[in-house]
Amino acid sequence: MAAVRPLIGITLGDPAGIGPELVLQALNAPGLRNLARFAVYGNAALLRRVAQTAHQPWAADLQIVPVTSSQTSLPRANVPLLLDFPNDEVAAIAPGQMHAACGRMAATWIEAAARDALAGRIDAVVTAPLNKEALHLAGVPYPGHTEMLAALSKSAHTTMLFWSPDLIVGLATIHLPIAKVPAALTQEKVLDAIRSTAATARRFGRAEKPIAVLALNPHAGEHELFGHEEETVIKLAMDTARAEGIHVVGPLVPDVAFQETQRRQYAAYVAMYHDQGLIPFKMLAFAEGVNITLGLPFVRTSPDHGTAFDIAWKGTASPTSLFAAIRCAALLVAGKPD
Amino acid sequence: MAAVRPLIGITLGDPAGIGPELVLQALNAPGLRNLARFAVYGNAALLRRVAQTAHQPWAADLQIVPVTSSQTSLPRANVPLLLDFPNDEVAAIAPGQMHAACGRMAATWIEAAARDALAGRIDAVVTAPLNKEALHLAGVPYPGHTEMLAALSKSAHTTMLFWSPDLIVGLATIHLPIAKVPAALTQEKVLDAIRSTAATARRFGRAEKPIAVLALNPHAGEHELFGHEEETVIKLAMDTARAEGIHVVGPLVPDVAFQETQRRQYAAYVAMYHDQGLIPFKMLAFAEGVNITLGLPFVRTSPDHGTAFDIAWKGTASPTSLFAAIRCAALLVAGKPD
Repeated sequence: MAAVRPLIGITLGDPAGIGPELVLQALNAPGLRNLARFAVYGNAALLRRVAQTAHQPWAADLQIVPVTSSQTSLPRANVPLLLDFPNDEVAAIAPGQMHAACGRMAATWIEAAARDALAGRIDAVVTAPLNKEALHLAGVPYPGHTEMLAALSKSAHTTMLFWSPDLIVGLATIHLPIAKVPAALTQEKVLDAIRSTAATARRFGRAEKPIAVLALNPHAGEHELFGHEEETVIKLAMDTARAEGIHVVGPLVPDVAFQETQRRQYAAYVAMYHDQGLIPFKMLAFAEGVNITLGLPFVRTSPDHGTAFDIAWKGTASPTSLFAAIRCAALLVAGKPD
Repeated sequence: MAAVRPLIGITLGDPAGIGPELVLQALNAPGLRNLARFAVYGNAALLRRVAQTAHQPWAADLQIVPVTSSQTSLPRANVPLLLDFPNDEVAAIAPGQMHAACGRMAATWIEAAARDALAGRIDAVVTAPLNKEALHLAGVPYPGHTEMLAALSKSAHTTMLFWSPDLIVGLATIHLPIAKVPAALTQEKVLDAIRSTAATARRFGRAEKPIAVLALNPHAGEHELFGHEEETVIKLAMDTARAEGIHVVGPLVPDVAFQETQRRQYAAYVAMYHDQGLIPFKMLAFAEGVNITLGLPFVRTSPDHGTAFDIAWKGTASPTSLFAAIRCAALLVAGKPD
């Protein structure tokens, strides 16, 4: 019995970035189409403009079923669906430029995809990159996808996690100035990150090794000479995780924790702040990195790169990370209990 | 005319750590002895105990000239000098254990080496690793070597810099809890780090590429959505550096700045805090990493690892980083104008 291919919603991300051209490549990739069906949340006129500018003539031959955004059910088709949100401002978009209109469009598509995912009309959401400043210019009150999807789905305990073949890293805090990290780092956030990261490691077949929990401070605080959060926050969250049966080690001295001999010892890492986890992750895993949001009522993944305005609509951006995000989403959907 | 070999002072570091056995290996290495002469600041009885426990029988045959610590001039000898600071507590030291006595001895040796370096009796100081907690137990009011040497030499503008064949990273702040980093990050500290890092990059033959200055906040603050220090501190320090003729780029988004394609573009990096620079540094360069203190009136280097209490006095620790630190010190002395 052949497995039913999941229906994955894909948002185009910021229209002026590399998202639309990468999504077109995904729709054209037989390997991905064997794995999943797709519903693209975007704009038909934009995709035509991008395909032309980015030298993607084959895009004109893609079979896509247009769906008006007011339809309450999605047709069951073997070819990709396009949920088209018409917008007069598309003609004025310049590739690689910041537009409030682009922030608004990107937000509209995400809202629609989240709504459909919550209603069970799609099985997962894969998001092409946003420009956070464009979102801000558009008055969208979220710094990024993760926060936005958490709010739209009323999810209080989300974790941003990064997966690659070599490294899995969950983040206890995400889009914050460094100055606000220590106060934001609560036991609850660390524990959420440990739980989600451990579950993901299991999902990817790495259950046999422990989860490495990083310290916040240099030298792991060196017994409170350089900070106290290891004692007052991180160790307490680790105690709770242990009581739940999760095998954790730490808080580890951050600057040596990602050395190769160390990496082999752990199933996955929990980092206390964005760059602590993402500097090593992106050194090791740029091309295939996937951003996974855990703690939502639906599967959500995205590539780990940004809008790359400097090469937008040129047809030169690599789709490797988006393809990996789609494969991850399909795998996570398949593993979800019904 | 053969170059005069510099006289390099070497401190043993924490007696209960791997420092003493590594220093013995350095004294036994012909390649290093061709490059420099050595004056070891330590304790003869300790070295005997370590050599025996760490299975270094050859150490008994090392020719070493003992020097009492009250001598005001150092004899000119072709074999290593040992400045011996007798101490009854040596017999009670257990390898891999924290002792206040060890913190006191280590501090005594560093003070003596700094005094001799300031008086011009030695040309450089290479320090084996300290245990910061032992130092603290001993009531020594400095978190580490860099702060201690800065105070002993009354140097207001020091920078901790890490060198390896692949990567040079200067740190604008060092041993601080993350919570104290943003307030400590002044224009002056960033500028000191840029100047020192640029000078070191030139010294190591990397003058042709720019110095990469990292942002403090994730996404480089994303135009002040996630923090303001990029605008209020880092860019201003970079402006001053540019006015002095230093080629700087940044503030760079930290999480992508250390990817391989990025690394090829820069002579060296300036990181805003300890782990931002040392996570990537230690991923790339553990075996040969060297810690250099800039802004002192003398050359100072050290290995980039710690006391490794878990393998102390076992004879298994790798001397690669200490050897590299000695070679770096000799090279930096040779390049110093008289």
